[in-house]
Amino acid sequence: MKLILNQKDLLDGINIVSKAVPSKTTMPILECIVVMAEGDSIKLVANDMDLGIETYVDGMVDEDGAVALKGDIFFEIVRKLPTDEGDVTLDCNANLETVISCGQAIFRIQGLDAQDFSYLPEVEKEECLQLTQLTLREAIRQTIFSISLNESNKLMGGELFESTGDELRVVSLDGHRMSIRKIKLKEEGPSIKVVVPGKSLIEINKILADDNDKSVSIYVTKNHILFEFDQTTVVSRLIEGEYFRVEQMISHDYDLKVKLNRKDFLEAIERSIVLTKNDDKRPIVLQIGDDVIDMKMNTQSGALKEQVEVEKTGKDILIGFNPKFLLEALRIISEEEVCLYMSNPKAPCFIRDDDENYLYLILPVNFNAATI
Amino acid sequence: MKLILNQKDLLDGINIVSKAVPSKTTMPILECIVVMAEGDSIKLVANDMDLGIETYVDGMVDEDGAVALKGDIFFEIVRKLPTDEGDVTLDCNANLETVISCGQAIFRIQGLDAQDFSYLPEVEKEECLQLTQLTLREAIRQTIFSISLNESNKLMGGELFESTGDELRVVSLDGHRMSIRKIKLKEEGPSIKVVVPGKSLIEINKILADDNDKSVSIYVTKNHILFEFDQTTVVSRLIEGEYFRVEQMISHDYDLKVKLNRKDFLEAIERSIVLTKNDDKRPIVLQIGDDVIDMKMNTQSGALKEQVEVEKTGKDILIGFNPKFLLEALRIISEEEVCLYMSNPKAPCFIRDDDENYLYLILPVNFNAATI
Repeated sequence: MKLILNQKDLLDGINIVSKAVPSKTTMPILECIVVMAEGDSIKLVANDMDLGIETYVDGMVDEDGAVALKGDIFFEIVRKLPTDEGDVTLDCNANLETVISCGQAIFRIQGLDAQDFSYLPEVEKEECLQLTQLTLREAIRQTIFSISLNESNKLMGGELFESTGDELRVVSLDGHRMSIRKIKLKEEGPSIKVVVPGKSLIEINKILADDNDKSVSIYVTKNHILFEFDQTTVVSRLIEGEYFRVEQMISHDYDLKVKLNRKDFLEAIERSIVLTKNDDKRPIVLQIGDDVIDMKMNTQSGALKEQVEVEKTGKDILIGFNPKFLLEALRIISEEEVCLYMSNPKAPCFIRDDDENYLYLILPVNFNAATI
Repeated sequence: MKLILNQKDLLDGINIVSKAVPSKTTMPILECIVVMAEGDSIKLVANDMDLGIETYVDGMVDEDGAVALKGDIFFEIVRKLPTDEGDVTLDCNANLETVISCGQAIFRIQGLDAQDFSYLPEVEKEECLQLTQLTLREAIRQTIFSISLNESNKLMGGELFESTGDELRVVSLDGHRMSIRKIKLKEEGPSIKVVVPGKSLIEINKILADDNDKSVSIYVTKNHILFEFDQTTVVSRLIEGEYFRVEQMISHDYDLKVKLNRKDFLEAIERSIVLTKNDDKRPIVLQIGDDVIDMKMNTQSGALKEQVEVEKTGKDILIGFNPKFLLEALRIISEEEVCLYMSNPKAPCFIRDDDENYLYLILPVNFNAATI
């Protein structure tokens, strides 16, 4: 195989597929990135068996072939090649000895047999969901923080992707809270209901463009989900099992509604966690009155009292929360004002907009009223 | 004690003294920052027994007093106070209960008795060395990388500060290499020869201004060195013992002189360490000819050949180095061209300018010529 490539194009391609290179494995071949050249096309492939990524790189093919190169070394070599010395040559002989050169720098590394590699599973592409890369990226970012990578319940380590055809709903939950984002689809797509591993979504998010003009197509089969965008294809295994009954956890009844400035509330909670460093189980206690919330945090390190102005309708309430859960939801919302809906100190609090494009459920925590 | 302060001024002051707050200690009082108010002046003090820092903060004193507050919590509280809500009030009662408030946020933390604190040692200020903060900062930055925090030789963990009156020389060495920077002093000062702990210098460097108009005064006693700048005083303990005989290690004879482009050489060495990830003892081998250096690196991961253009006078040489040592010296030099002076593959290589404002000594390493 002999290829001539632009350094930046090659580096970008390696950067994309390297998201599927496992850092530790007992099978050296899986730590590799496969470079394949056939006709005019140059393809890079990596696969950690849960997540597989393929991407095409522009370049000139002088001679077809394929080789598997250790991912970390290949990435570092290409990253450090001189950028002002013209094109990169990648030349692999029959013994898979691979020479990567650019300007005066000539690297020689031993490749492995690309035939031993585990390629991406075949995914039958029928109907697809289409959305913009930015939309998918945002939906993942705005929900991924409430997955739980707890081994005892694998479903909590994934996100529900559920579509009724014209709307995609992305859901994550960890037993203490739940995050939901809804996306209106411009084109009608298939109905789907699958659980995608959070780890896969975290990696996919790193390579999706921050761009509303670029689209991504999503295909689903029984065991896999496939994302197709730009010159890249990502296939992730799905998590098996029936996801939690999301509808049953959501209530639209409430006894009080609180409207407040998100930034003020967020900063007050950020201050409260200053005191939880050595004592992170302490709740923030909110006394919600008609015009203000009186906030209190008491830990071994000290105490904080704080007031935030609100517009409240409904009864007063004294309720405690894990401040981290409030914080993570409030940070992810972009609106200037948010509404909280509550019923009693044991019932979940909902942070949602009127159309429920976002909905964050947070369970309150018990606290000893005597210590407040 | 009752004080009214600007949030940013207070935060800056805490940030300065916190460099002397130890992260772990068996004496809780040492983890504190002391706030002292007397008359018009507000002083913050921290001391980890090796390094002590005092700084003055602008503010209004309503009531004199002193209290020791846990450094990490105090810093985090002040950092998170609302910045647009006006001044910070710090109010400490007779039981040392301290209220720090700003706007609607009211923190209450328990202070400790400031009388139990270990204050900075008295340093008799006689003659001083004067230089600009930027100059000192640069001299530390350009030498600190070659100290060794190896317990078996404490002197290697420090830097020699040696002045003959009109020139300050800063030296560090770790047994494999040595770094020297010389600074011409504008005003004649005392002759000194002391070894300052590297850890102290690293912390001092974080608080020195990046400014050639601001000066720093250095006072030395038998056991301590004192740096005075802006509103801050830093006192460090010295390392006892006779420093290495620096002059004896320096030779001005050489058999070849190589002049090269620093950036090209640096980038070639950076490429070579890509291959040393799992095999970091491998030398980079330089075959120095009349117009080029042929560079070679061979490791388990692969091989690199590279050429760098040079102007050489003197004989040819085949010599090996730990690439990390070359790298760290070359990165710190700002000149576009550098000169290397060598004699034979066993003798030290010197990288220095004509006036020896900088001098880096690097010992070569043995290598098996058969593997090259």
